[in-house]
Amino acid sequence: MKVSIYGAGRVGVSVAFSLLHYSIVDKIVMVDIDKNRSIGEAMDLLHASGVFKYCNIYAGDPSDIIDSDFVVITAGRAQRPGETRLDLLIDNVKIIKSISEDIKKYAKDSIVINITNPVDVLTYLIWEFTEFDPRKIIGTGTTLDTLRLRTLLAQQCGVSSASIHAYIIGEHGDSEFMPLSSATIGGVLLRDYCADCDMKAEGSSTCLDFEKIVEEVRTAAYKIIEKKGATNLAIGAITAKLIDSIWKNEKRVWTPSVLIDDVYIGFPAVLGRNGVEKIVKLKLADEEQELLEHSKSVIRKAIEEIKKVLETKNSPLDRISGT
Amino acid sequence: MKVSIYGAGRVGVSVAFSLLHYSIVDKIVMVDIDKNRSIGEAMDLLHASGVFKYCNIYAGDPSDIIDSDFVVITAGRAQRPGETRLDLLIDNVKIIKSISEDIKKYAKDSIVINITNPVDVLTYLIWEFTEFDPRKIIGTGTTLDTLRLRTLLAQQCGVSSASIHAYIIGEHGDSEFMPLSSATIGGVLLRDYCADCDMKAEGSSTCLDFEKIVEEVRTAAYKIIEKKGATNLAIGAITAKLIDSIWKNEKRVWTPSVLIDDVYIGFPAVLGRNGVEKIVKLKLADEEQELLEHSKSVIRKAIEEIKKVLETKNSPLDRISGT
Amino acid sequence: MKVSIYGAGRVGVSVAFSLLHYSIVDKIVMVDIDKNRSIGEAMDLLHASGVFKYCNIYAGDPSDIIDSDFVVITAGRAQRPGETRLDLLIDNVKIIKSISEDIKKYAKDSIVINITNPVDVLTYLIWEFTEFDPRKIIGTGTTLDTLRLRTLLAQQCGVSSASIHAYIIGEHGDSEFMPLSSATIGGVLLRDYCADCDMKAEGSSTCLDFEKIVEEVRTAAYKIIEKKGATNLAIGAITAKLIDSIWKNEKRVWTPSVLIDDVYIGFPAVLGRNGVEKIVKLKLADEEQELLEHSKSVIRKAIEEIKKVLETKNSPLDRISGT
Amino acid sequence: MKVSIYGAGRVGVSVAFSLLHYSIVDKIVMVDIDKNRSIGEAMDLLHASGVFKYCNIYAGDPSDIIDSDFVVITAGRAQRPGETRLDLLIDNVKIIKSISEDIKKYAKDSIVINITNPVDVLTYLIWEFTEFDPRKIIGTGTTLDTLRLRTLLAQQCGVSSASIHAYIIGEHGDSEFMPLSSATIGGVLLRDYCADCDMKAEGSSTCLDFEKIVEEVRTAAYKIIEKKGATNLAIGAITAKLIDSIWKNEKRVWTPSVLIDDVYIGFPAVLGRNGVEKIVKLKLADEEQELLEHSKSVIRKAIEEIKKVLETKNSPLDRISGT
Repeated sequence: MKVSIYGAGRVGVSVAFSLLHYSIVDKIVMVDIDKNRSIGEAMDLLHASGVFKYCNIYAGDPSDIIDSDFVVITAGRAQRPGETRLDLLIDNVKIIKSISEDIKKYAKDSIVINITNPVDVLTYLIWEFTEFDPRKIIGTGTTLDTLRLRTLLAQQCGVSSASIHAYIIGEHGDSEFMPLSSATIGGVLLRDYCADCDMKAEGSSTCLDFEKIVEEVRTAAYKIIEKKGATNLAIGAITAKLIDSIWKNEKRVWTPSVLIDDVYIGFPAVLGRNGVEKIVKLKLADEEQELLEHSKSVIRKAIEEIKKVLETKNSPLDRISGT
Repeated sequence: MKVSIYGAGRVGVSVAFSLLHYSIVDKIVMVDIDKNRSIGEAMDLLHASGVFKYCNIYAGDPSDIIDSDFVVITAGRAQRPGETRLDLLIDNVKIIKSISEDIKKYAKDSIVINITNPVDVLTYLIWEFTEFDPRKIIGTGTTLDTLRLRTLLAQQCGVSSASIHAYIIGEHGDSEFMPLSSATIGGVLLRDYCADCDMKAEGSSTCLDFEKIVEEVRTAAYKIIEKKGATNLAIGAITAKLIDSIWKNEKRVWTPSVLIDDVYIGFPAVLGRNGVEKIVKLKLADEEQELLEHSKSVIRKAIEEIKKVLETKNSPLDRISGT
Repeated sequence: MKVSIYGAGRVGVSVAFSLLHYSIVDKIVMVDIDKNRSIGEAMDLLHASGVFKYCNIYAGDPSDIIDSDFVVITAGRAQRPGETRLDLLIDNVKIIKSISEDIKKYAKDSIVINITNPVDVLTYLIWEFTEFDPRKIIGTGTTLDTLRLRTLLAQQCGVSSASIHAYIIGEHGDSEFMPLSSATIGGVLLRDYCADCDMKAEGSSTCLDFEKIVEEVRTAAYKIIEKKGATNLAIGAITAKLIDSIWKNEKRVWTPSVLIDDVYIGFPAVLGRNGVEKIVKLKLADEEQELLEHSKSVIRKAIEEIKKVLETKNSPLDRISGT
Repeated sequence: MKVSIYGAGRVGVSVAFSLLHYSIVDKIVMVDIDKNRSIGEAMDLLHASGVFKYCNIYAGDPSDIIDSDFVVITAGRAQRPGETRLDLLIDNVKIIKSISEDIKKYAKDSIVINITNPVDVLTYLIWEFTEFDPRKIIGTGTTLDTLRLRTLLAQQCGVSSASIHAYIIGEHGDSEFMPLSSATIGGVLLRDYCADCDMKAEGSSTCLDFEKIVEEVRTAAYKIIEKKGATNLAIGAITAKLIDSIWKNEKRVWTPSVLIDDVYIGFPAVLGRNGVEKIVKLKLADEEQELLEHSKSVIRKAIEEIKKVLETKNSPLDRISGT
């Protein structure tokens, strides 16, 4: 099995490193403009592979992605402290466009997983640029946010995240939210679970402050970037897990960024060997549906802005991509 | 880590064999009256361990269970075709009593997992015989039935059982049931998921016949026994998984047989290094609560009958256990 | 990935059960004349799969093996106490012939792993019957014997079998042997390791009695069969491991039965996605080479005897295979 | 199980990240002077843990290492391009001394794994500072070099590193070497394997240039540091594997830095729950023995130099450690 990763920065390397632990990959190609760095990372990864299963890892050119089973896109510059995810947009579209052309040319049967932010907008553009079946193009969407939510709930409640079914859905950004109406722990609505909890304070109606936990998830990236300059480990781990799960055709439900109506957005979907096997018809309370529509409109607006730039003759993008 | 298994029949051996795959156990003691068989199985298991991690496996006496981390009880004769699980009761109590005394004497800090049927009744008796903290004594309860349910749903719906949260609860027997009101797939109520399913037949209100699936779960053991004489693989796999999960302190929710009020019964509970960490306060619809109460009364009645026998001087049991 | 298993007896079921733990298989077909038993085992296995990853397991007909990645042959009746492995020959050839025809017809791109005894002779015949590339046809050979040897050495020496490189090679039968001249523990010749061992008795020149250990390996099957009627767990575990290792293209060295000169015989070989990637040119001491030649001649003679029967018109085999 | 890691730099974080994949740790404490960084890394790791098993990961003070099962030391500043490993010495001793005092005070029952370079010298000093049983104090020694060697051989020969038994031993530095006389592939001496190789060039006596491969291993760190500024992935993967293997009591042979005579040096040793279970009595050819003695003398000299500094009143070290 072959995986190509665009970007040998911290995120791309974390995806590759985590993936080695599953002993399922025969070949990993790291594609990066900074050839020196990608050669160094590939050497270090190659040695690491010996702990698990030998994997041929090397720094390659776009043409080396040929016959990839998965293409992971982590290219683009990192989010800066204080910057919103949408600020990154213009700078990263040109990179995405060029990568999409590579994929179209060399790896048309691959499943594409985009991580680059703003993930929903860029995944949409990759879909447009490649003209692939949308089931084969996904973004990491709110899979990381859902992971963070479950880990925080696991920590607070003393229950494995495997027994917690709560999602963060919507834009991977400030408008994301937890649909509380469907969140459960061990088969009990999260709301009821917390109201009944033995650990809740005297006189309190619930044990957890849901707003606070979701806010913690929403701001986690900002906090981590502030502390260490980037987030890479959890996104690396969840992306590698997605690849393993898709490759093994597990058909688990995740919250990748998938095409719903006219936007890519984080939503529960079954992933298997065909990519998106099914989008789950999640029931939302009225106010949750409103939040989702709002989130969609945020993404839609960003897509439209970019499209305008793309359509303008002699636009900055054209000039950039022409270089 | 040390595991002692009472019974080197098909079930005990399947538990041991599955457990080897996790590479977590250093010592397994197989205790069986048929020493020849247990020696043969221990030899075969010992060789198998080399594929994973060397594990010292041998046929032992009760005193060899000393310092076990887990004691698994699979003793008792097997269910016969056509026989209900409760029919087995009288024959197996004497064995259980003697084993309980061993555990009390040699392995008082172990976690005890009983598989012997009727599992709820016998687990209750083990608790009484040992006088242990009930959190350290569990039965496999409806963990296998829940596994079967999820596997059948996974098969029908094309979704991983990891994303299906549906339980079978109650007596591991004819009065068990699925609380449909809390069953979900991918965060959607099972009822809604099936009503919305693309695969449902024209004009049908749902895709699945829930009654039929639960009936299939309820009768699975009978059918398998009819075909191959016993059920051992799935129960072996789920029990080994329970041990791994408890040992790693995962705190996942399972449906073991746990003490609720005055009976042991299959019910969602969080299992960790302390055994039962928490019993989940599952919300039941009124008719589901009635089914649970009925199931409890079936178990309660069986316990009472046995207790009467136990309390009678010169009872068959006394005489038997005196041999 | 699809695996078809001929024989739903203890061995076939153990292979399937162990294999589920690797979460790599999507479909397992159990083919057995006793349809009832294979249906029962398939149901039990199906439920067990839910612990790992859903796997579609069912009792099938020969035509159901279509497009298998692996075909495992465990058909044939079991070895009886006191009986040598060669005694089984005549009875099992007819079954093997019919299975070979199935494979040729329905699964010509599969890798075939034969377990049925006498494994070397029957694997040779499968190769002749199918006319496949010999790299795609292997027997379990002395993989189990090597596993047993390493496990016993691990037990005696307190060193993981992963750090022990000793083989049993030759006929999977009475003429098999350990080439001591190449056996190492942790990079030290086993002979030297034992001579230097702190655990060796005062005045003794070595810690282990090599002859005794090899004899223990050679007679392990007899002893286990005497005790429990069959050996199935260790052979199931090693066969499932072989499948996992081949599927992941690990290219590890095992001792399968492979074609060397004009016989199939247990010998070190690198196994990968192409089947036998390379036969290792093991250096043997003169007396070891003699033992190997003797072992080859035992197999060769058995093959010739069978061939004579096969070539005889109206031979018992023809009549049998015509039924 | 609890692991404390000194240093939240790239190496410490890679150890923690890799370790999460084994699902065996309940608690990880990251101790670093740069509290901000360690808080950020701990948050990212915490979220990642949700993919595997919830693990309580946090940035702690030295007193938080209490009751650790393992203490991993990655503190000290990184090697600079062009700098030899021994150059790092003086700067890192003071950090090591203070950490040793923490361990002595809070985690006297832990197994200590030192990674900080020069690893052999500093591990020796940790042993002296802590006065622990030397079996409980190891350095990563040449485990990484051995891993690199096997991975390169695996790549060249098309054989899994699991079937390659070749070591790099001696100082983790310029005087390390491969004892070719005991190196084997699939049970064949590496020398013979390569002389017989089908891939060797016409007229060549061997397929591989052993000197060149060892030189590649020896200079791998320099090259990777030159390209990406540090090496962290392979060392993280091998250290996590060591912890998993020790915790599971596998008793595999590795080449950690262990106490031999009066130095700590990379040499084959069996590692288990007691730490160093046994040092392997590797047979060396005369010229290899000389290389080993030379390597020992390099380490010995470095230790002596440091000791002199330590013994000088008002030495730079005292002044530093007094701040």
